Amino acid sequence: MKKFLNSPDTILAESLDGFAAAHADLVVLGPGRQFVRRAGPVPGKVGLLSGGGSGHEPLHAGFVGRGMLDAACPGQVFTAPTPDQILAAAAAIDTGAGVLFIVKNYEGDVMNFDMAREMHAGRSETVLTDDDVAVETSTWSAGRRGVAGTLIVEKIVGAAAERGDDLAALTTLGRRVNAATRSMGVALTSCTVPAAGTPTFTLGDDEIEIGVGIHGEPGRRRERLRGADDLAAGMIGAILADLPAPPPEVLLLVNGFGATPLMELYLMFHAARRELAGAGVRVVRSLVGNYVTSLDMAGCSLTVTAMDEGLAALWDAPVHTPALRWGA
Amino acid sequence: MKKFLNSPDTILAESLDGFAAAHADLVVLGPGRQFVRRAGPVPGKVGLLSGGGSGHEPLHAGFVGRGMLDAACPGQVFTAPTPDQILAAAAAIDTGAGVLFIVKNYEGDVMNFDMAREMHAGRSETVLTDDDVAVETSTWSAGRRGVAGTLIVEKIVGAAAERGDDLAALTTLGRRVNAATRSMGVALTSCTVPAAGTPTFTLGDDEIEIGVGIHGEPGRRRERLRGADDLAAGMIGAILADLPAPPPEVLLLVNGFGATPLMELYLMFHAARRELAGAGVRVVRSLVGNYVTSLDMAGCSLTVTAMDEGLAALWDAPVHTPALRWGA
Repeated sequence: MKKFLNSPDTILAESLDGFAAAHADLVVLGPGRQFVRRAGPVPGKVGLLSGGGSGHEPLHAGFVGRGMLDAACPGQVFTAPTPDQILAAAAAIDTGAGVLFIVKNYEGDVMNFDMAREMHAGRSETVLTDDDVAVETSTWSAGRRGVAGTLIVEKIVGAAAERGDDLAALTTLGRRVNAATRSMGVALTSCTVPAAGTPTFTLGDDEIEIGVGIHGEPGRRRERLRGADDLAAGMIGAILADLPAPPPEVLLLVNGFGATPLMELYLMFHAARRELAGAGVRVVRSLVGNYVTSLDMAGCSLTVTAMDEGLAALWDAPVHTPALRWGA
Repeated sequence: MKKFLNSPDTILAESLDGFAAAHADLVVLGPGRQFVRRAGPVPGKVGLLSGGGSGHEPLHAGFVGRGMLDAACPGQVFTAPTPDQILAAAAAIDTGAGVLFIVKNYEGDVMNFDMAREMHAGRSETVLTDDDVAVETSTWSAGRRGVAGTLIVEKIVGAAAERGDDLAALTTLGRRVNAATRSMGVALTSCTVPAAGTPTFTLGDDEIEIGVGIHGEPGRRRERLRGADDLAAGMIGAILADLPAPPPEVLLLVNGFGATPLMELYLMFHAARRELAGAGVRVVRSLVGNYVTSLDMAGCSLTVTAMDEGLAALWDAPVHTPALRWGA
């Protein structure tokens, strides 16, 4: 295992300390490193809370800030945050208007966020994300997995929370965005969990995992590595096949898994965009980069969200976080 | 070689097309893909032009936009752009106030930018960056190499150009920022050039290259992999030893080489910041991410720029590019 670390036991704490120091203008690290919260909470605003296992950076802590999340709870690597963590974060951001939990659909996360919700004194709701079309159930989840589409839910709901939407409206919006979103990933290599020290799975020199999960969990099948156009066609095909009809206008997110350089991600964006155009689907918003990662996995996912004017305006609204930043 | 591509011959063209489509609000791809230029040139402003071999994305095209570069010329992978490309870009952005070339100190780049400068009809100056303290000369350069510190030069000079500084002032400023900047890198793995198909160099399972260049060229020595704190201490030590005295306040850039996840980069930021504090150096600005990469190399570099109030204000000034974006 070749990683920048001192010990697998301290990697999360040291990384969080570095993160908080690098972004002290935007975020604050909570007591005991239980959560990262937005600097300067907004009284009367619904608190948006997410979290999950670490190793997917910048998700979720990188999306804490104005126009997106109010707090994020980082679990140990690929391990759900504890109910205590989540409860402490919810208490820290609930200024009376309630808390919305945005939770990726994995059993550990669902269980611990549910427990925290039951204990939280104020009002709360949950939006579960399950945008991964690769498999219907997995080793980590009952039902579909929540993957890169989660960041689109967080951005759009975050903008609506910032303008003052209430808890019920945000819950409805979050579920609507999730329902309009589909993702599919492919791994070129495994990731290596620091505490394990060896790759999570093994791929041959010319083998790839189609539909891989963001923890390296199995997807649909192993295939031989092939050209980017072919791969994009297969992934976009799977996504469109899963929608009732090809949407006229979409947001296209090309997300790297951590070890895939931008040059390749932009090439995949080019291929995916052309594939969508061939199906009569126009890309009206886009995002390309390593946003929902799997430690040091090489690979990428494509995410498509059906857009309308209202969603586009919320996507365009200012966001001021460590990992996404635009607008005044 | 496991990469997202169709053919090594078309990787650059397809990637540039994807890049231009994804950032059509900010940049325009020039005829024949010779350069990427800012959407909406500013008459009367000095044009800032950079470029170099591709494979270092987001450098340089990702830094084209308001408050940074006016154009960037992407060469083939790890190959200098041609004089024709550079000349076409200079002509496209020269609105009468002249053009400043920001060039990393590699023989091919220096030669081709010099040839273009001689042919360019308008006024021009060059700022050479050579921030890498690892080696005094290298297989690719006479004198020190220009590495991640180049982005700091581009950001600060870009802000000064935006406020209307003239060509002479920008040249002086660029040289001053370069002189105040030092970098040192370490590779955990090699990169693989698409056209070659095999790793540029070979490292043992527990071996690292101290002082590696951004093309995988040799650094100071091979060592055994060790803890992040030790590595950061060595790199910061080399940087501080190269300065006349430890500066009281610095910008600290922790730059990933393409395949190193954010979790590890923030951990390195934490270690480097503590090391600087021990030497009485305070980190007043910071940047952490994969900005000046070496294709799919795992590794990182640390860059330190001695700051003062004037430089901090220019660093903080609005920037609106695909890869760096802040301010109104």
